[in-house]
Amino acid sequence: MNETIKTLQDHRTIRQFKKRALTEAELTAILSAARQTSSYTFLQAASIIQVEDPEKQQAIAKICNQPYVAEAGALFIIIADFYRNKCIAEAQGVDTAVLDTADRFLASFYDATLMTQTMLTAAESLGLGGVILGSINNDSRALIKLLNLPKNTFPVLGLALGEPDQEPQLKPRLPLSITVMKDGYQPLEDPLNALAEYDKEVRTYYDLRNANQRVDAFTLQMARAMANPPAKRSELLEVLQEQGWLKR
Amino acid sequence: MNETIKTLQDHRTIRQFKKRALTEAELTAILSAARQTSSYTFLQAASIIQVEDPEKQQAIAKICNQPYVAEAGALFIIIADFYRNKCIAEAQGVDTAVLDTADRFLASFYDATLMTQTMLTAAESLGLGGVILGSINNDSRALIKLLNLPKNTFPVLGLALGEPDQEPQLKPRLPLSITVMKDGYQPLEDPLNALAEYDKEVRTYYDLRNANQRVDAFTLQMARAMANPPAKRSELLEVLQEQGWLKR
Repeated sequence: MNETIKTLQDHRTIRQFKKRALTEAELTAILSAARQTSSYTFLQAASIIQVEDPEKQQAIAKICNQPYVAEAGALFIIIADFYRNKCIAEAQGVDTAVLDTADRFLASFYDATLMTQTMLTAAESLGLGGVILGSINNDSRALIKLLNLPKNTFPVLGLALGEPDQEPQLKPRLPLSITVMKDGYQPLEDPLNALAEYDKEVRTYYDLRNANQRVDAFTLQMARAMANPPAKRSELLEVLQEQGWLKR
Repeated sequence: MNETIKTLQDHRTIRQFKKRALTEAELTAILSAARQTSSYTFLQAASIIQVEDPEKQQAIAKICNQPYVAEAGALFIIIADFYRNKCIAEAQGVDTAVLDTADRFLASFYDATLMTQTMLTAAESLGLGGVILGSINNDSRALIKLLNLPKNTFPVLGLALGEPDQEPQLKPRLPLSITVMKDGYQPLEDPLNALAEYDKEVRTYYDLRNANQRVDAFTLQMARAMANPPAKRSELLEVLQEQGWLKR
């Protein structure tokens, strides 16, 4: 097994960091890797905002409701960015109405999301750890204001990186026999029964991690995941449309 | 520079493959890496469809309008999959109306997209190459039918992998001085001028690649990217909503 496969198969989320900033060499390696990420028809419709201002770091930690976000060695917000290409097109007198389509929305979100994974993998290969922050969506409007994001951009994912100050167990994932299908969709028959063994694994993982924390089975977590999201996250489609996306 | 960083910084899209299927060892390494990819609040809302049926491979190549898709050593469609979790929740008597929100849509699309990047990186580390296929969106309805995708799923990205039968040049990307910003969005002033040097690089790349092909500057490509997408790709939002996504 090569080092890259080992890094990928060994991924675990790190939420506790040693108190040091990433070095210039680390940042250069991670950002140069990000730069080469695949892009939807070469649109390069993603940008990276590195958040260094401690007040902004705190504000983002508050939005995420995760204090460790402000304690990472580097904090990035990866944004879908069609504003740059819009300016480029408008400077050539071209109409940019197409940007409100789902097609251009997806292109830009793909670019930003692929780039986030590249950055995390690069960091992990250097012995760093991190966490991808979907929780920036808890209050997208606040984040858009904080980072002064123009229309045709959107904060897609956050990424907190740093030197790990914890050694979490590998979190067990759904077996490939369930997630990989051949030639078409294969529904899971009798899901609670099919997942009984996996539920046991997940409960054991939580047990070992911390006896005081939840020991939910996976299937129970998925039932809870059907609760309505917090108020501001329920407005996500509105905010996306305010930013000029997904109108048609 | 470690092997992983080297692999990531060396990424180039491969569109011509040697005539051999991926080995079991290669598939196992790639899928096991995919399995451990970060997942939005542990929802694991993505699945992988490996397309082995030659007729289905041909049909997908036709949707993508890229014949090489059917000639790859392995072809995957990575899907946003909340159908599995929906079945799990319903088996416990839980209402799943929340799945039509943008919040759950993004969660599932993030999971599938992050996983796609992990698979490509894993493959490249093994000396394989590939191409991420956004072009499966050319006719999402046809693909949904072909793969028998239930509601609350969606074909997010395709991935064609194989042993490279070409050695393309590294395609120059936007400089980090343009794509990486500090603490907030920094608009590009006077974009055509700011990108003049980069435009030159891109033209040189196309020149070297093939004298008979286009030698468009990046800025000109971005102007063209504002043209309306093909008819069926203009219906993407409708199709997403038919699949139960993004209604609110």
